[in-house]
Amino acid sequence: MSIKTPLNTSKRILLGPGPSDVHPRVLKAMATPLVGHLDPEFVGIMDDIKGMVQKTLLTQNHLTFVVSAPGSAGMETCLVNLLEPGDEALICIQGVFGGRMAEIAERCGAKVIRVEAPWGEAIDPEQVKAALENGNPKLVAVVHAETSTGVLQPLEEIGKMVRDAGALFLVDAVTSYCGTALKMDEWGMDALYSGSQKCLSAPPGLSPVSFSQRAVEALDRRKTKVQSWFLDLSLVKSYWAGAKRTYHHTAPVSAMFAIREALQLVLEEGLENRWDRHRRNHELLKSELQAMGFEFLVKEGYRLPMLNAVKIPDGVDDLEVRRSLLNEYNIEIGGGLGKFAGKVWRIGLMGESCTPNHINMLTGALKAILR
Amino acid sequence: MSIKTPLNTSKRILLGPGPSDVHPRVLKAMATPLVGHLDPEFVGIMDDIKGMVQKTLLTQNHLTFVVSAPGSAGMETCLVNLLEPGDEALICIQGVFGGRMAEIAERCGAKVIRVEAPWGEAIDPEQVKAALENGNPKLVAVVHAETSTGVLQPLEEIGKMVRDAGALFLVDAVTSYCGTALKMDEWGMDALYSGSQKCLSAPPGLSPVSFSQRAVEALDRRKTKVQSWFLDLSLVKSYWAGAKRTYHHTAPVSAMFAIREALQLVLEEGLENRWDRHRRNHELLKSELQAMGFEFLVKEGYRLPMLNAVKIPDGVDDLEVRRSLLNEYNIEIGGGLGKFAGKVWRIGLMGESCTPNHINMLTGALKAILR
Repeated sequence: MSIKTPLNTSKRILLGPGPSDVHPRVLKAMATPLVGHLDPEFVGIMDDIKGMVQKTLLTQNHLTFVVSAPGSAGMETCLVNLLEPGDEALICIQGVFGGRMAEIAERCGAKVIRVEAPWGEAIDPEQVKAALENGNPKLVAVVHAETSTGVLQPLEEIGKMVRDAGALFLVDAVTSYCGTALKMDEWGMDALYSGSQKCLSAPPGLSPVSFSQRAVEALDRRKTKVQSWFLDLSLVKSYWAGAKRTYHHTAPVSAMFAIREALQLVLEEGLENRWDRHRRNHELLKSELQAMGFEFLVKEGYRLPMLNAVKIPDGVDDLEVRRSLLNEYNIEIGGGLGKFAGKVWRIGLMGESCTPNHINMLTGALKAILR
Repeated sequence: MSIKTPLNTSKRILLGPGPSDVHPRVLKAMATPLVGHLDPEFVGIMDDIKGMVQKTLLTQNHLTFVVSAPGSAGMETCLVNLLEPGDEALICIQGVFGGRMAEIAERCGAKVIRVEAPWGEAIDPEQVKAALENGNPKLVAVVHAETSTGVLQPLEEIGKMVRDAGALFLVDAVTSYCGTALKMDEWGMDALYSGSQKCLSAPPGLSPVSFSQRAVEALDRRKTKVQSWFLDLSLVKSYWAGAKRTYHHTAPVSAMFAIREALQLVLEEGLENRWDRHRRNHELLKSELQAMGFEFLVKEGYRLPMLNAVKIPDGVDDLEVRRSLLNEYNIEIGGGLGKFAGKVWRIGLMGESCTPNHINMLTGALKAILR
């Protein structure tokens, strides 16, 4: 390793499961010289971010902020704060990320009840209903956009059941946030975490989160300390939302500059316009891919617009094609995760990567490679 | 909140306890368009970073990487992985950060033995010796550079005792890393965490860490799962160090571009030259401040070069002076933490902020304000 090698990356087109392409305005904001993490100017930036996360989640929740670490840490933030040892947690699993929630909930000492759907399908609300009748969970968790399978999970019906049962409703919105309809308050969610690098198109490393008043009351009723100091909301909230901003950890200042600009771009476009754009481009990609003979993994009506899981045609070598896309065309798409490894491709159309130009680059390259 | 307000920060001079000023090359690297977190090019960048962290820590440890979150998460990474419920942990406390380690160790279910020094003083190795004779700790933890008090803790003697006692030696090097002599292998450390935003002068948000072979063996002998999924080294290490880089979480790609460039700058300067620069500028600041009548909190010989704790003179209003420095001169210095709030200032001379020009700006401004 020479010590004088400058950073020398290729100009990638990011059409995988995230990160997505980042707007030049976001890159430029991120390169702004720093201010301190307790500077009054930075406190103002945190307030801007909080307000814009509330708007983009359609929530009034006071406890809305951005975790200083990637989406998986946002997931862990929600679970370690809302669960105590012995609590019952009902976790819906229809892919990798539901499984990860169950894994974390168990590490919190919770008694985990699993409600599972086959990979590539959505959870049937009737399954949740049955599980709620047989148990008494403190929390029910579900993934809105399962990035490992491309399934869009309908939330409204489940949300209502969970509320009626008196449980807390936790939603993984990492991939759906800013890319498809997501209405935190209207759909009765109590806790939600997301990621910066999907349809928001900020660099990875941050996780917007929000907690309802019911969730805050559950936090206040805890009998034990949160097992993570870094993610303990009773400490983090005085930094993000206290009258006096008490030092907890050093916030990633540059990443916050970036997410602020990415959020502004969303609001300038309009949240619903952005949802529509993702839907329209998904339709365009779908018709192009189907014309080429590709089949979608997920049945119509449950497909994510921003993460298209398609079956790899027989006789096509997964790695070879993805290597050609990357090396000859600078295009990244995602391979299959877990049981779908080698069987599906995951094509992301997220945020700045969700344009007809991106679709044309990809389909043109695929046609040439598969010819 | 208007949605069309561009980011509009002042050009701050960062002379607090971190973040420090960031070199334009680092800002520029950070603004590079992204590549995917599993892209072969990014894997090469991770390898570059790992190699440069090894060089700057003077370690051969294979398990050396960068946690995708700030220094506090690096602290938590070390403790949650090395401790299991019931383990005995001897924690040296001479300020806020030693106290934080004890707090986290307790949340791991460890039996914590505290060895304390008055704030502003170093831990006496004899105290550690006595505690080792009276207990049987699995781990002994100490802060090398206590940012809350400005104390430089000598490590070699304690390190030898800890090794002789068969315990693991954990060091907080958040503020000392790249700013003063720090020799991981020679001084017998088993685990170490640092931060990106102090003497390395990268933006905050990352934590370089390293684990010795003895520490790795302790990880392998664990009987229970690590309570944090996000920080679980048995999972993280297959992403950073596995032959096949297995997806764990999405790495903060842009922040990694930045830390790579910051590490290159350190190696171009030369690690020992950088330590010398911090010492020389500390001497310069000291003579300037003493000529103005300031007293240091910490006695000679135990002072940190990069974090100068000075007593606020009688009759001087802490907040008013710091407000003037910030608003009239764009200079940030740190106030006192905990029991030193209102009593001391903490003046950082870290990385890119450690130059005679910075010292002249600060002392000139202070002279004018205190006139």
